[in-house]
Order: sequence, then structure tokens, then C-alpha cells
Amino acid sequence: VASNKAPIGIFDSGIGGLTVVKAVMDALPGEDIIYFGDTARVPYGIKSMETVREYGLQITTFLLRKKVKMILIACNTVSAAAEPQIVERAQPVPVLGVVKAGSRAACDVLQPTDKVGVIGTLATVNSGTYEAAIQDINPKMRVFSKACPLLVPLAEEGWTDNEVARKTLEIYLADIKANNLNGLILGCTHYPLFKEPIREVLGNPDIKIIDSAESIAASAKAILVEKNMLNPKEKGNFECYVSDKPQRFQQLAERFLGNTIPRIELVSLEHL
Amino acid sequence: VASNKAPIGIFDSGIGGLTVVKAVMDALPGEDIIYFGDTARVPYGIKSMETVREYGLQITTFLLRKKVKMILIACNTVSAAAEPQIVERAQPVPVLGVVKAGSRAACDVLQPTDKVGVIGTLATVNSGTYEAAIQDINPKMRVFSKACPLLVPLAEEGWTDNEVARKTLEIYLADIKANNLNGLILGCTHYPLFKEPIREVLGNPDIKIIDSAESIAASAKAILVEKNMLNPKEKGNFECYVSDKPQRFQQLAERFLGNTIPRIELVSLEHL
Repeated sequence: VASNKAPIGIFDSGIGGLTVVKAVMDALPGEDIIYFGDTARVPYGIKSMETVREYGLQITTFLLRKKVKMILIACNTVSAAAEPQIVERAQPVPVLGVVKAGSRAACDVLQPTDKVGVIGTLATVNSGTYEAAIQDINPKMRVFSKACPLLVPLAEEGWTDNEVARKTLEIYLADIKANNLNGLILGCTHYPLFKEPIREVLGNPDIKIIDSAESIAASAKAILVEKNMLNPKEKGNFECYVSDKPQRFQQLAERFLGNTIPRIELVSLEHL
Repeated sequence: VASNKAPIGIFDSGIGGLTVVKAVMDALPGEDIIYFGDTARVPYGIKSMETVREYGLQITTFLLRKKVKMILIACNTVSAAAEPQIVERAQPVPVLGVVKAGSRAACDVLQPTDKVGVIGTLATVNSGTYEAAIQDINPKMRVFSKACPLLVPLAEEGWTDNEVARKTLEIYLADIKANNLNGLILGCTHYPLFKEPIREVLGNPDIKIIDSAESIAASAKAILVEKNMLNPKEKGNFECYVSDKPQRFQQLAERFLGNTIPRIELVSLEHL
């Protein structure tokens, strides 16, 4: 059994998962965090389920070698494609995925017969896992999904609040908006950067926006408290691993994490 | 020495290179073509030069095992990052890259003291290889480059002629337009899909648009004619290999190739 001083492992296809790191740092400031971003193979959202599953398992093994006490799948695409397989590989280390965390959070804030929208990558939306996870909890909740493949590249270009972003959101949200939603799940770690323009385009302040990064951080905290596994430190360390140092990396990382990035270590894919 | 009946190998980071396949089919209808699209690791344009170089060499080795008589680097990013290394690896098989082909075509249609714009991915533009290749031929030509990272995802979403595409092009082209260009090189295999809206946004029909897909097909034909290596067949075969079958693959491939796609074979990355 892992020590309570062991780090939490968090991973994503790229650096979007740093929004989850940020949420975990806010919720659990004493925890050491090890992050892996698969920047050499990003984006996962357009790849096949089989490929995404294989990549997710490789990264899980990498984190287990780092002796983590918990794994957070910060990537909706991996969470949708491979959560059961990762849970099995990681045993007895607990695994949380953004899909289940976001679905549970949506069911907590909405009524059982409400209508909820989900936006995510092509792979996440095509997998239907949000629908399944939500209807597991509330079989009567209606779920409307929409793939928004351009939002990740827009976020990485820093265009989260200009005319192109708003026009893109208008096109993507038109269908699901027509269903008079009660809530909308941001089913991709990049999407919290669009929270404000999404609110504007939805045009109805009563629609609850569920940020799966915040949801998974809250779930992680609940589990660590319950298992009596909180790190007693005042301020945790943060180690960041990537499989490639992409163009504009520093700038992008700061956009997501919202503060100075520590030293980044490059991990060759052969060592995964 | 390869037989004239050997196939031409063409590769790209993804399926954008199918625009080059189409141009080669038009220019050289008798040639057999083997295409490799690295769809498991697309896009290359945001990755580091070292990573792009490694991937390019792996694919070159794959094509050489297929006994190709010529290799066309249909990816501007690889062409910018690794052309000399690929030329060396492939010897004595001739290698052509889109960067040199596009640069030569630009110098052919423009005056030596003209001003030319280049648009491409972050990696292509940051590498400065178009500038170097053009000024190798015409040292007095002035070159203005602009990275347009959103155009690839827009093309893959099929948004090549809507309001979002036009607004995006207006933003990207504003700087270089201010330089009173005489020509513009489309330095990415996805960009020919935006030819019409680019013309509109440039707003000046005298600006010559250079499509590097057409340029490389013309260069390939010239070399095969010169070396007396044309395939005498009436109609060539087309074999298509990819490293992943991505979401919406068929639909996308048809968008690029403009006709029915043959059987696609999946190649595991371990076999590269």
C-alpha cells in the first residue's frame, strides 16, 4: 500500500490536463503531483479507440513506476476509451477519470429529469461514455452531445475570446442549445478556457456549467480524506514530464496552469 | 537501381498529403503510388524539430522497404526539418520535398526582386527553411512568413469556406498582406483547400498563389522524364498506409483526394 506521502499522478494527451493540475493544487495544496503530458502524440481526440487505449496504458505504467498513490486521468478521451483497463492495470492504486467525475458532478447539481449537454472531442463524443455514465446515475436524464474538434486548437492558439472563438462556439452550440439545456458539461480539459464565451453564446445564466477539471479534483480530495491518505505537507512539489517539447510550450503551459512552470523533463516514448 | 515499374513513395504526417497524391496522379497517371500517412502521430507542425526528424526517417525506411523508385516528402514540416537527413538515408533513391519544390516554383513565376509570403505550420515557419530555399535561388527576393496553426484543424473539420475560415484567414494574413506581396506560397499540404477564400481575403487577383502540391508533382515528373524512369503503364495502382484509422477518416480522405479511397492498410508504429 502506498504511503500518504506518495505523489498523485495526473496525465493527459498534452498539456490541457494542466487545468486539472491547477484544480488539484487549489483543492489539495499539500500534495506532491507528477504530471505526464503526451505532447509527442497529442491530440488523442481524433485517434482510434484502440490507439488511445494503448497510449493510456503505457502512461499508467510510467506513473506506477513513479510510485504514485492515486492516478487521475485528466484526458476525457482516455477516460472515455480506457478507464476500466487503466483501473485494472493500476490496482490497488485508485484511479479517477474526468468522465465519471464530471458526470457525477452534473447529477449532483441538476435534477434527475433535467437535460444536460456534453461537449468534447470527436473520440469522447463518439464513444458515448458521458451518456452511459450519467444514465448509470440518473436513468431519466437526457443527454445531448456535440463534438467540438476546433476548440482544442483554438485554445492552443490563444484564441479563446475573439470573434473566431465566438463564431465557432455559436456554430457548435446551436444544435444542443435548441434543446433548452439545464446544464452543460465541459467534457475536455481545454474547454474551461472558453467558460466566459460559452456562457455568452448560451445566453442563459440559469444553465449550469460543469467543469470536469474541478469535479475530478473534488473527487480526488474526497477519496484521500476517506482513506486517510492526505499528505501532511504544507506545500506539495510538482514534477512535469512530457514526451516532446512542442513549439510554444512554455507560453502554452503558463496559459493553462496560470503560473510559473517548474522544470520540465522530457521522456522518450521508448521509455514508456 | 530501382526499376521504372517501381512505385513512387509519398508520405505526410497525416492525410493532408493526399493533395500531393492527387497532383501526382494528375501529372503522372501511369505511376504506382504508395502513400504513408502518420495518422497516429499527426500533427507534426506543433512538435519539436528532433521529433519530426525521427518520425520522417522512420517513414523513409518503411518506404525504402517497399522498393520505391522515388520519395516525395509531402509534409512541409518534415521537409523543413529533415530533408537533408532523408536524402542521405534514401540514397540512391531520389528524394523531393515540398519546400524546395514550392520555393523553386515561386522563383519561376515571380521576379527576382519580388516580395513573397509563405504560410505554414508553426514548425515550418519557425524553421526558416522557405526563406533559405528561396534566397538560395534569388538572394534579393524578400520573404514574409506567417504561421497559421488553425488552418489544418479547420480543413479537417471541413470548414474551408465559412465565416470562421474567412475571419481566421483575415487575422492570419493581415500582417503579410500589409507588405504588398507579389506571391503567396501555400506552405502546407492542407492549405490548397483554402485557395478560394485566401484569394478573396488577399483581395488582389495579381498576387500569384503557389500550391506546393502541384509544384512537387511537376518536379517529380521532370526528374522521372530526365532519368527515363516513367512507368509505361496506362493507369497506376494506389496503396495507402496509415498508422491509425482516425475518426472520420473516410470522409476526410475523400475531401483531400477528391475521389474514392482504395483499401487502407493499418501499419503499427512498432513496424516502422
